[in-house]
Amino acid sequence: MENPYNSGLERNPANHQPLTPLNFLARAAEVFPDHVAIVHGALRRSYADFYVRSRQLASALAQTGIGRGDTVSVLMPNTPAMLECHYGVPMSGAVLHSINTRLDAAIIAFQLDHAMSKVVIVDSEFMPLMQEALALTKVSPVVILYDDPEWNGARMIVDATDYEAFLGLGDPDFDWLMPEDEWDAISINYTSGTTGDPKGVVSHHRGAYLLAQGNALTTSMAKHAVYLWTLPMFHCNGWCFPWTLSAIIGTHVCLRQVRAEPIWNALADEGVTHLCGAPIVMSLMISAPETEKRDLEQTVQFFTAAAPPPESLLADMTEAGFEVTHLYGLTETYGPAVVNDWHASWSDLPRGEQAALKARQGVRYLPLEGLDVLDPETMQPVPRDGKTMGEVMFRGNVVMKGYFRNPEATQKAFAGGWFHSGDLGVRYPDGYIQLKDRSKDIIISGGENISSIEVEEALYRHSSVAATAVVAMPHDRWGETPCAFVELKPGHDVDEADLRAWCREHLAPYKVPGRIVFTSIPRTSTGKIQKFALREHARDLVA
Amino acid sequence: MENPYNSGLERNPANHQPLTPLNFLARAAEVFPDHVAIVHGALRRSYADFYVRSRQLASALAQTGIGRGDTVSVLMPNTPAMLECHYGVPMSGAVLHSINTRLDAAIIAFQLDHAMSKVVIVDSEFMPLMQEALALTKVSPVVILYDDPEWNGARMIVDATDYEAFLGLGDPDFDWLMPEDEWDAISINYTSGTTGDPKGVVSHHRGAYLLAQGNALTTSMAKHAVYLWTLPMFHCNGWCFPWTLSAIIGTHVCLRQVRAEPIWNALADEGVTHLCGAPIVMSLMISAPETEKRDLEQTVQFFTAAAPPPESLLADMTEAGFEVTHLYGLTETYGPAVVNDWHASWSDLPRGEQAALKARQGVRYLPLEGLDVLDPETMQPVPRDGKTMGEVMFRGNVVMKGYFRNPEATQKAFAGGWFHSGDLGVRYPDGYIQLKDRSKDIIISGGENISSIEVEEALYRHSSVAATAVVAMPHDRWGETPCAFVELKPGHDVDEADLRAWCREHLAPYKVPGRIVFTSIPRTSTGKIQKFALREHARDLVA
Repeated sequence: MENPYNSGLERNPANHQPLTPLNFLARAAEVFPDHVAIVHGALRRSYADFYVRSRQLASALAQTGIGRGDTVSVLMPNTPAMLECHYGVPMSGAVLHSINTRLDAAIIAFQLDHAMSKVVIVDSEFMPLMQEALALTKVSPVVILYDDPEWNGARMIVDATDYEAFLGLGDPDFDWLMPEDEWDAISINYTSGTTGDPKGVVSHHRGAYLLAQGNALTTSMAKHAVYLWTLPMFHCNGWCFPWTLSAIIGTHVCLRQVRAEPIWNALADEGVTHLCGAPIVMSLMISAPETEKRDLEQTVQFFTAAAPPPESLLADMTEAGFEVTHLYGLTETYGPAVVNDWHASWSDLPRGEQAALKARQGVRYLPLEGLDVLDPETMQPVPRDGKTMGEVMFRGNVVMKGYFRNPEATQKAFAGGWFHSGDLGVRYPDGYIQLKDRSKDIIISGGENISSIEVEEALYRHSSVAATAVVAMPHDRWGETPCAFVELKPGHDVDEADLRAWCREHLAPYKVPGRIVFTSIPRTSTGKIQKFALREHARDLVA
Repeated sequence: MENPYNSGLERNPANHQPLTPLNFLARAAEVFPDHVAIVHGALRRSYADFYVRSRQLASALAQTGIGRGDTVSVLMPNTPAMLECHYGVPMSGAVLHSINTRLDAAIIAFQLDHAMSKVVIVDSEFMPLMQEALALTKVSPVVILYDDPEWNGARMIVDATDYEAFLGLGDPDFDWLMPEDEWDAISINYTSGTTGDPKGVVSHHRGAYLLAQGNALTTSMAKHAVYLWTLPMFHCNGWCFPWTLSAIIGTHVCLRQVRAEPIWNALADEGVTHLCGAPIVMSLMISAPETEKRDLEQTVQFFTAAAPPPESLLADMTEAGFEVTHLYGLTETYGPAVVNDWHASWSDLPRGEQAALKARQGVRYLPLEGLDVLDPETMQPVPRDGKTMGEVMFRGNVVMKGYFRNPEATQKAFAGGWFHSGDLGVRYPDGYIQLKDRSKDIIISGGENISSIEVEEALYRHSSVAATAVVAMPHDRWGETPCAFVELKPGHDVDEADLRAWCREHLAPYKVPGRIVFTSIPRTSTGKIQKFALREHARDLVA
């Protein structure tokens, strides 16, 4: 017999609509039109204005001929215009392509060509970079210049439309385009491309809706939370927080540059309740001169990712009144899709044990249906022993649509019905996962796998080490051996022999670095250590 | 040119899964297995056990031959078994049919036949009622008896399988059935049927997932909230809160009966943070003897619906440390889909103005895409003037799939692409809606429409009136005139002439009730006043 519940009960416009986070802004503007949506220097912009300006942007883009399936690229720091693009661009039917401002012109040109970009919206600060990139592209996008009053540097004279003038062309009542299907693309973000060409990660409205809500639910963000933009919005669309904030009628506090003083001022003056960033952002805040720090009335939630927060930093943050939550995800998972979901009982453990628990990446976000550590050959889960390494894999509604114009990479990434992250990790008996390395970060020495993270962790426990990164270095006898790059804390004075002695105490002999180099460690704009650069450096060294 | 973002980027098991709230429990059990999921008297049940028992129930049902599209009916108060049914029944692929325990046997028999019920799970207290109903049905469902240790009344000897024994047959590792599509039915709930046959409202997994999250987001419910079951779960699946709590790893505190003493004890002893109910539940709590009341350390959120909370009650609740939020919805919208989203600035207004603002039903829930007050003839929005009446209409993902085996009613309900609620209301300039009446509650007197709610509001403002309900009464000259039924506060002594004088002061002459009857007002189990009974009564009266 046919299922009687599937008969005469079809989808219709009254009971089915495509899921899209764009609707969050429409609701926020409707219900709390006067609530401050955006703070930027002296600027205070209401939800009503935020929505009107986003619709104007969508309308102006439509008038320029932009529609469904077109790419609009943006090269901007964390400004109000960048937030408007997260709504206005998809409201025109187009796909938002946010470009990392730390990239070089050649990679930007590659992205513009690959995404077939039709419009670029560029902040004054990055116009010289964009001009350099445009000289290399095959595409000839319309150029729009965003002249942020908070930018105090030089302004290049270019032949471009002014952003405010462009918005002015738009209809504030524009009947913006809902996606035809919630599977429609909302954004494209290129992965950093440390190996091979950058890949264009395509996200859809459904996933953005679900992850935006997942952020609020996973982290218990309440109505009217105040969010400080220390995380670059070009990084996975700011982990979907541009959309989360509209869902909870929160306030965005923009920030062009991540420096300690404006961060502390925003925390104190704007009543910031939440911010995100790599551990380096916490270090920056904690190591600021006391004169720059401010007393806070509220408890502030700090969501960190990219690297596990070190024990001493966690202790410092707790003492300063912050609650730190460790998140993990990839561009392919809309940002964070894994959370170190804290158990209240863990807070009674000794500080070291707490830090060890906090260093684990954790468990799946509510909107992620599956997270596991699998043997990539057999696709079987590894034992939950906290030791056996496997590849971290994801499945669910907050996994990307696929890689743009790259069916081969897409198919490979989704082989066996799971998204293959390329990150290696273990799973503990309680189901929490911990990253141990990127596949390519494994150091193979005399046939034994060495996790560079394990060596780094040993070095981080030394009281003089501020930061470290370990990569493989060629070795005549063993093939490879670890090479450690180290930044010391100010005023600390140890030498290579001291640190090697420390490592011999804390590591198996074959894991002790063949060389320890004291240097400034190169990082990406999001605080990720650029291991590829260090690997090149290490190739020239001898153990 | 074809949209390039729709090519080579198809759905696959790694990036697309049906949305279902059942997954919330799987995650809760995985991440917080030892957290207390359910409290019931002395019972403390962990999430691990809750999940295992739900899977056992699903497995036992599957062994009984139950599968996709079958109906499993339950007749139970707010017990752990009722929570297990909200997961275990759909985990078997079946559709959950919760029956209102206040109904009479004939209506229950109608529901069982119409839903083609294959299994009934019945609490000891309601077994006599179910036996009476089963004597009237054409269907012959398997009968399972839930013998709740917290039930202290008589136990009927019947030929039925014991619930615990039934569960014992089930496999704790049962590979439960995901919906094949998120549009699959999860539940059926019959509307009260004050007019015509009851209609079976079919809900789907997608809507239940979204409204369950919407509850937490709309009301800022944080991780580990503690929820007291004063709202009957048979009412719209407890407004989806059985699923919401798993999403935020909260604790359910069960309650067989809504009485003041156990409510206050649960609030104090279990640290309850949230509860729901009609205003009558608040009255019950506030009017309890001081010896039954308890001091609370926490602020408690009370979500109320079914009727606007009166001003004095709001004041009493605030003084007692509660925060009251007014919600509105229908069975057809999964429970609450409208919230009186409070503006912080309103809290500075005089008490009366606050109560007037709080009496409005409000604005759409985050997962509801559209809410409006339309002229049902023209389907045009009424002016936002707070005066012009129209029909409240909904559209979006938290609107039902339709009425079961009733395509005619379904089509009528969805005419013009909106769900027609049958509730009449107005819309204010700020977009908030307020109910003014059910269509059938309009009293037409001398060609003028009288809102029974307006007359009730006038009576409620009298200091001696505890409760009132106004319906139409036949009138020789005017056709109809209002008839008011009134419950007085204990110790208050006013007569019909006093109240009519009061009404003449506060209402237009034609709105003054022709008769005022002092009586006990009949209510449904959810606190809704049974106007149909009063209407029958009024037919026999003379003005």
